[in-house]
Amino acid sequence: MTDTARSTTRYGTRPTMKDVAARAGVGLKTVSRVVNGEPGVTPDTERRVQEAITALGFRRNDSARVLRKGRTASIGLVLEDLADPFYGPLNRAVEEVARDHGALLINGSSAEDPEREQELVLALCARRVDGLVIIPAGDDHRYLQPEIAAGVATVFVDRPAGEIDADVVLSDSFGGARDAVAHLIAHGHRRIGFIGDQPRIHTAIERLRGYRTAMAEAGLPVDESWVALGPTAPERVRTAAEAMLSAPEPVTALFSGNNRVTVTVVRVLAGHPRPVALVGFDDFELADLITPGITVVAQDAALLGRTAATLLFRRLEGTDEPPQQRVIPTRLIPRGSGELPPA
Amino acid sequence: MTDTARSTTRYGTRPTMKDVAARAGVGLKTVSRVVNGEPGVTPDTERRVQEAITALGFRRNDSARVLRKGRTASIGLVLEDLADPFYGPLNRAVEEVARDHGALLINGSSAEDPEREQELVLALCARRVDGLVIIPAGDDHRYLQPEIAAGVATVFVDRPAGEIDADVVLSDSFGGARDAVAHLIAHGHRRIGFIGDQPRIHTAIERLRGYRTAMAEAGLPVDESWVALGPTAPERVRTAAEAMLSAPEPVTALFSGNNRVTVTVVRVLAGHPRPVALVGFDDFELADLITPGITVVAQDAALLGRTAATLLFRRLEGTDEPPQQRVIPTRLIPRGSGELPPA
Repeated sequence: MTDTARSTTRYGTRPTMKDVAARAGVGLKTVSRVVNGEPGVTPDTERRVQEAITALGFRRNDSARVLRKGRTASIGLVLEDLADPFYGPLNRAVEEVARDHGALLINGSSAEDPEREQELVLALCARRVDGLVIIPAGDDHRYLQPEIAAGVATVFVDRPAGEIDADVVLSDSFGGARDAVAHLIAHGHRRIGFIGDQPRIHTAIERLRGYRTAMAEAGLPVDESWVALGPTAPERVRTAAEAMLSAPEPVTALFSGNNRVTVTVVRVLAGHPRPVALVGFDDFELADLITPGITVVAQDAALLGRTAATLLFRRLEGTDEPPQQRVIPTRLIPRGSGELPPA
Repeated sequence: MTDTARSTTRYGTRPTMKDVAARAGVGLKTVSRVVNGEPGVTPDTERRVQEAITALGFRRNDSARVLRKGRTASIGLVLEDLADPFYGPLNRAVEEVARDHGALLINGSSAEDPEREQELVLALCARRVDGLVIIPAGDDHRYLQPEIAAGVATVFVDRPAGEIDADVVLSDSFGGARDAVAHLIAHGHRRIGFIGDQPRIHTAIERLRGYRTAMAEAGLPVDESWVALGPTAPERVRTAAEAMLSAPEPVTALFSGNNRVTVTVVRVLAGHPRPVALVGFDDFELADLITPGITVVAQDAALLGRTAATLLFRRLEGTDEPPQQRVIPTRLIPRGSGELPPA
């Protein structure tokens, strides 16, 4: 630490623990205890120190910090469903970056419930994680502002933060969806259905926008019965697919909005009398071994996780860059199902 | 609390905070602070209280505790690979039981590294989880004894605890493997290969024992070139499978020891000129949509998780039953690949 050189608060210089101590009227050791969650501070003193931290915008994380402490550094990853295979490689990539930095990763799942997300995020903060990677369920993250002000580094991944300014790493959902639908159109399809996730989820809306854009670019009308957003529960997806396939003028191709939707659509099509073309958003294990192989728009989930975690550790190491948004491209992988002609 | 009625330590009565306070020579509030991780206790006092806790065998968890505290109760789940789909339903089941009890679940992965497991478990304990569900990577859990003595409830799942006495929930790996191999024998196979996980993993050894038992029960010899245990990395599994299939007297059937092995074996067999029968341990998504469908021995991963979490909350609610072992049966699901005759 260079407390001496930085002991006064001035423009362009980040406040130090000394500044916090002076403002709160306590000793440096007391500030250190509060910042590091050590015992020996009365609630009243803790509150005064926290107020000084907030007022000064002190961030407890700097390059020295992660390495300096006796306890193990840790970061938290909050995702929406621990059982969704899409998150496996993302999770593992975040864990590998954490390990490379000597930090532990602890995880939790919001189960796509904004209240649960908030409860879990704040519980992890209370358990003194140094930083958070969040796949948000909610769209208002102002509840995180005091934690961020207190120095918890935060990066959002897969979906943007709501109402706060933070680092965000996204897949190109719009571009990937447009590619998928343009691919089906190039193979002769005109009536193309889209079955996506719930409309309050950012990626679902972006993929719908990609679908509509590709149709519009080809001069094709969209019948609203071809669009079905909703939960990814198999019954809902099955009902939606069967309705589109049994209409008087049935769709000849389907674009499924994520891997949870795709696996159910694959099942429906396996029992369907006519071949129906399919492109799925998200790659999945064994997609190439089904007959026909399933054409997908693959996201690089590992790169999403690695990019988010790398940004997080740059914050922990004290970077003062403004929050940034990174978009990771998707990749269309033709395997047979997306190249079937209209029946 | 019934501190008054239970204020003396006697046989059959669990020690209370009052007993700890008396032995440590401190006030009840100080014990409470130590037990609940609140600030305001000097390191020396904390040490004396911890010594009294250990000496008396005081357990901080009782039925009142989880409900009494202002902070959210939490349990930890340590598993070996966040990206293995087998753990998805287990994870989700533990989470659902936790939620039913008003508790948060936080997770971490040992990446099959015993040191990492220990580091993570102790980090979760330091972050005051109330209990732990552990899928162990290591085989010596004596490092957990102080935590268990201090009241952290602990249940092991999928693999047993090593060197300590604790609740354990297992699948019937031995019985499931014996069923799988007996099924292949019943379909005419005599030369059957087994590709399993690393031999230091309990389930790998149990499944190998099931394989050997089924072969012995049918009076069939086992050529040692038919058995390959090792990491589940695709290259290792591919090499092992190809060696067994290209031997002068090749195997006519394979039994794969878990879902990670199975997906690679399915790929190898898809490129193999002759049909080879296959039964896989663990069910997996879309196993029925590959041609032929993959016959599996299914574990009930959700029931494993639910049983473990339910046992954990019984401990948290104060049960004094001795540690128990539960074994969950497996189920053979014929789908085609396990019913192919010898080529």
